[in-house]
Amino acid sequence: MSNAPPLNPPVRVLLGPGPSDIHPRVLQAIGKPTVGHLDPYYLQLMDEMREMLRGVFRTKNEMTLAISGTGSAGMETAVVNVIEPGDAMVVCVNGVFGARMTDVAERAGAKVTKVEKPWGEVFSVDDLKDTLSKAKPKVVGIVMAETSTGAWQPIHEIADLVHDAGAMLLVDTVTALGGLPVEVDKWGIDIVYSGTQKCLSCPPGLAPVTFNERAMDVVLSRKTKVQSWYLDLTMLAKYWGAERVYHHTAPINMTYALYEALSLVHEEGLEACFARHALNHEALKAGLAALGIRYAAAEGHRLPMLNAVHIPEGIDDATIRRELLTRFGIEIGGGLGAFKGKVWRIGLMGYGSRENNVLLLLGALEQLFTEQKHKFEHGASIAAATQVYAAATKT
Amino acid sequence: MSNAPPLNPPVRVLLGPGPSDIHPRVLQAIGKPTVGHLDPYYLQLMDEMREMLRGVFRTKNEMTLAISGTGSAGMETAVVNVIEPGDAMVVCVNGVFGARMTDVAERAGAKVTKVEKPWGEVFSVDDLKDTLSKAKPKVVGIVMAETSTGAWQPIHEIADLVHDAGAMLLVDTVTALGGLPVEVDKWGIDIVYSGTQKCLSCPPGLAPVTFNERAMDVVLSRKTKVQSWYLDLTMLAKYWGAERVYHHTAPINMTYALYEALSLVHEEGLEACFARHALNHEALKAGLAALGIRYAAAEGHRLPMLNAVHIPEGIDDATIRRELLTRFGIEIGGGLGAFKGKVWRIGLMGYGSRENNVLLLLGALEQLFTEQKHKFEHGASIAAATQVYAAATKT
Repeated sequence: MSNAPPLNPPVRVLLGPGPSDIHPRVLQAIGKPTVGHLDPYYLQLMDEMREMLRGVFRTKNEMTLAISGTGSAGMETAVVNVIEPGDAMVVCVNGVFGARMTDVAERAGAKVTKVEKPWGEVFSVDDLKDTLSKAKPKVVGIVMAETSTGAWQPIHEIADLVHDAGAMLLVDTVTALGGLPVEVDKWGIDIVYSGTQKCLSCPPGLAPVTFNERAMDVVLSRKTKVQSWYLDLTMLAKYWGAERVYHHTAPINMTYALYEALSLVHEEGLEACFARHALNHEALKAGLAALGIRYAAAEGHRLPMLNAVHIPEGIDDATIRRELLTRFGIEIGGGLGAFKGKVWRIGLMGYGSRENNVLLLLGALEQLFTEQKHKFEHGASIAAATQVYAAATKT
Repeated sequence: MSNAPPLNPPVRVLLGPGPSDIHPRVLQAIGKPTVGHLDPYYLQLMDEMREMLRGVFRTKNEMTLAISGTGSAGMETAVVNVIEPGDAMVVCVNGVFGARMTDVAERAGAKVTKVEKPWGEVFSVDDLKDTLSKAKPKVVGIVMAETSTGAWQPIHEIADLVHDAGAMLLVDTVTALGGLPVEVDKWGIDIVYSGTQKCLSCPPGLAPVTFNERAMDVVLSRKTKVQSWYLDLTMLAKYWGAERVYHHTAPINMTYALYEALSLVHEEGLEACFARHALNHEALKAGLAALGIRYAAAEGHRLPMLNAVHIPEGIDDATIRRELLTRFGIEIGGGLGAFKGKVWRIGLMGYGSRENNVLLLLGALEQLFTEQKHKFEHGASIAAATQVYAAATKT
């Protein structure tokens, strides 16, 4: 009836925009024996996991949990729970994911005002001031780590502005979480969502979210039902809370994976995680510079875990990515939207953010650039990267 | 920072309403190395998987795929893609999942007419005739295998009635698929959704769906956008189709699990699967009868994979289920809603539907009933079950 071949996925080095390299312990965890979603063992696991999630989000928010879907389900959860038809929302758009948030919000009935910046740039307080005072939004949505451009959006000052305008701040931390400080409580972010397949070294399939009390007051005093039954936090809260009221059957094995992934982050320590992401980014950046490769995002606003870089003149995008994958087993990402064919997206996320991967990728690029007769100083990229590592070892 | 204990889930025998016992090959598959969601290997895997899905759905529908969420996300996908605000929908309610479908449909803006029957009963053509001619619905929703009551809803005749009334038929096959014939093309079901954690022996986390051309014509000619971005088939079709346009990051490892689970179903053969589910059901039923346990659903409409049975007088629900779990490692389900405290739900689904499990459960129940001083003929349940197996072996 079926001639489907046996399942034998190739072993890749995942240096694209996600999924990132999965830690071997996480791959072991995901295959552990499935228990029921109301099993006392599983309920305890959920409690431990949400405590670890609070740790990476740096929050005490009661409403912290993992949505049973990928990062985009997290985005939808964040939006549909606080937006009612006719509510005003401002969305900051400087890449694919801000644009996606606009679409999600409009489908929820929001009157959306977009604030736009060129791809690769970030928003300042001044960029938003006028719009906020005119639009008087209920919610302002912004992406902290724009995976399509590699731009790192500062959140702290924006949060103050948004709160002064009487609005709630909704932040996409899909690519940021675990690789950069996400200070939910200190910055006062009201609504946050993320994904598992970036800096948490876990397969895609769950979306961590956290809502503060202010946001939950809004959710709990809605006039209309949340438009999505599946993502309705008022019901999910009863399963994740003391009552354990059945809502839907949780993705048990994905929860095992996230549990193990979060354990790894906490064993390493969040600050050590951030430092590792920063160091490998610096080394890669030095190496890429030696190959004449420029970043898409401005200096000072470059994400450590997602390096969006211009493809050098004369280099064929498709050939390089295909050869990286087929000969070296390395996946890097192509450009999305406005950056299609112009930009590579090199992820050094979670377990993927390692010295080994930086040196391997630079070596492979040197090899392929040589074959494409691209002019550069041979060996210089490796030399530049190793100098960064050597300097870091000294201190 | 975290004192979360190591992940060591207990090994359970999952005989509840799902998740069911996972086949060991599926647990191995889910932990295989993660590849990217645009990796040529993964794209090929998606193609093979959807072909296997078409096989279990018995359909040629192009629009056959797995939604990145659990069964309830499948339900929401089925509803929100075909319903636009103001559309009339009839929902058949004889248990929890019909009620849930009503809620989902109303949140999508449907004007819902409910047809209700007592829990445990099923719908006949006569039950629906009047309502269909009055309500003139765009869609009629019904649950084939009502997991809260164990009732098996015949679909074929209802399908003819619904089509004669000019409506589309939307069927919940979450618990049915892989354990009972689901004849999507032969019966002409327009919209179908399912889950992975029942008769497919796969962890929860994906929701297979299939839409026929008629349903897709409706989806593609909508006046309004699908209210859920995450579940919008018009966009998902472009990722699952030849274009491979990125929509969201697919849950790669869950897809491995479903791929392996579907391979197992096809290796065994669908008819053999159905026969196995039927036989183990008959054996369990004979054994339970010897313990004086009655079914909640009427004879002739009992699901083979989900045995909802009345808890005998004098037997303490919570004690039995706790002891089954803690001493024997066996999970069975309690009653939901109107059946809470009154009914047990014993699943023999997928890999869980095995002679070993039937005999083990009957033995454990005999042990616990003896301790609770319940009167029954000792050994009779095992004798009754083994006679069923013996008779089947002879033929």
